[in-house]
Amino acid sequence: MILSKHTIRIAIIGGRKASDEALQFAYDVGKLLGEQDILVYTGGGPGIMESCSRGVHDGGGIAVGVLKGSTSEEANQYVQIPIMTGMGDLRNGILVRSVHGAIAIEGNYGTLSEIAYTLGYEKPAVGFQTWDIPGLKAVDSPEQAVETILNLIGTQINV
Amino acid sequence: MILSKHTIRIAIIGGRKASDEALQFAYDVGKLLGEQDILVYTGGGPGIMESCSRGVHDGGGIAVGVLKGSTSEEANQYVQIPIMTGMGDLRNGILVRSVHGAIAIEGNYGTLSEIAYTLGYEKPAVGFQTWDIPGLKAVDSPEQAVETILNLIGTQINV
Amino acid sequence: MILSKHTIRIAIIGGRKASDEALQFAYDVGKLLGEQDILVYTGGGPGIMESCSRGVHDGGGIAVGVLKGSTSEEANQYVQIPIMTGMGDLRNGILVRSVHGAIAIEGNYGTLSEIAYTLGYEKPAVGFQTWDIPGLKAVDSPEQAVETILNLIGTQINV
Amino acid sequence: MILSKHTIRIAIIGGRKASDEALQFAYDVGKLLGEQDILVYTGGGPGIMESCSRGVHDGGGIAVGVLKGSTSEEANQYVQIPIMTGMGDLRNGILVRSVHGAIAIEGNYGTLSEIAYTLGYEKPAVGFQTWDIPGLKAVDSPEQAVETILNLIGTQINV
Repeated sequence: MILSKHTIRIAIIGGRKASDEALQFAYDVGKLLGEQDILVYTGGGPGIMESCSRGVHDGGGIAVGVLKGSTSEEANQYVQIPIMTGMGDLRNGILVRSVHGAIAIEGNYGTLSEIAYTLGYEKPAVGFQTWDIPGLKAVDSPEQAVETILNLIGTQINV
Repeated sequence: MILSKHTIRIAIIGGRKASDEALQFAYDVGKLLGEQDILVYTGGGPGIMESCSRGVHDGGGIAVGVLKGSTSEEANQYVQIPIMTGMGDLRNGILVRSVHGAIAIEGNYGTLSEIAYTLGYEKPAVGFQTWDIPGLKAVDSPEQAVETILNLIGTQINV
Repeated sequence: MILSKHTIRIAIIGGRKASDEALQFAYDVGKLLGEQDILVYTGGGPGIMESCSRGVHDGGGIAVGVLKGSTSEEANQYVQIPIMTGMGDLRNGILVRSVHGAIAIEGNYGTLSEIAYTLGYEKPAVGFQTWDIPGLKAVDSPEQAVETILNLIGTQINV
Repeated sequence: MILSKHTIRIAIIGGRKASDEALQFAYDVGKLLGEQDILVYTGGGPGIMESCSRGVHDGGGIAVGVLKGSTSEEANQYVQIPIMTGMGDLRNGILVRSVHGAIAIEGNYGTLSEIAYTLGYEKPAVGFQTWDIPGLKAVDSPEQAVETILNLIGTQINV
């Protein structure tokens, strides 16, 4: 995998608790992105974050974890590049600042803050069974999520 | 004005650009809170933040500004206690972490992130012509905004 | 006490554990600053921070606490304006960014990081029995600390 | 290169401006670490950060950049994993929180704050022609820097 600061970076955002369908969705999206040599950023925790990072791992990609805490113990086992912010959920903004676009999967208020930051930075965001916010594009399948976010990023890579 | 760490603290959240009606609403809310010796926290900038802080000033209260930047130059002239975070909009989370509840007035994605943080911290939030988010209580007048948020805080002061 | 964004703001930095002499020094400095209507910022915790804030209280001033945690419970009882950063010691930079100058009293590595930030921002810093760092001016008494920092600030108020 | 959250991570800290000798030292350290499959974290900017990241690149390793700003434009061309904190030098703490140990090379007050954080977290730090701080071990060559920091980390890997 060729890495540079120009490599496409996508954040997968979602909660610690999620439905089985959402966890499978996160895994599939992670695998697709990993297979395409796209860097995947998550919050590094359990639930959607872990399932997605496992998919990245299986797809041969690299999973970055922008963690709430100060040690890597809290990182799920598929995080390969841990960033320990020690800032709790203030790290939500760092997570989406660091990427070209975001895919939201279900999620609660934390995910909502991440969607808000992403759209506030004028970056594309797509969502699966998540908050209904103007500017966020709903998608139905992992393939559609990846294809849509890459198309949207294609027209505005300046991050 | 008697100040202690137990003094009630309310955040007024809203954008740099706002309608005349919203600016008046922010002023009125600030004045009401200032008159009741409630500490008012804003982002310290222009628009809703400035109008509210002016109201606080006229009401004889204290306006805290949790600023995006690193100098007090960007603070509006009514900020009395400036906090220079230098963190840009990552400071949104600090702003609402520091208070007992929040009043949202119009606002764009930045305000949405603040609403998300407030509700995620299980603190009460009311809103005037702002985002329609489950958990946020809509209000129609400055008086209703202040009365409602104080009632909601009354039952859950543990911050 | 007349408050505005132009009011002089001084940070008192030092540790949770301190000698009796240092605690007395912190109290005296806080009292002197409070009597002169200077806003005092500390980290809001125990030790030097608490002793100084108590002095501010007795001097009739206002003590701001820029806290490590997310609730005001950790604030010492003399903090009047709590800011809950939830960032742990990353808040050290916010503390000294927010003021015109700093007085360091004893202290360990946390205090050293605050001295480094203060001097890096080209703000004046004086110290009592603390780290010996180029640019930090040593002082021997609370009166000398206050007089020296105010003189140094007088020539460079642009924050 | 096998990556996991247990991979050794080292921060190289130093300034935007540096002597030729220090820049060469940074390059050599980066190359040695890259060849040994150790993850290298820097602040992602010019000077020591760029020279080190170029060494990592030539050594076949991975260079993480924990940036001050909000876009990857400011990252030097050798950063492969950019983290855009948008927090200015508050990111200094995140940089050293994320690693097992740090190597300081020359540097000014920013580097001093990073040394302070590293030692405050009870992580090992070595330094080349940098601040003389108790707890920081001076080294004379890139080989000695790498060998010493790895030995010190070996006895306290719990991050």
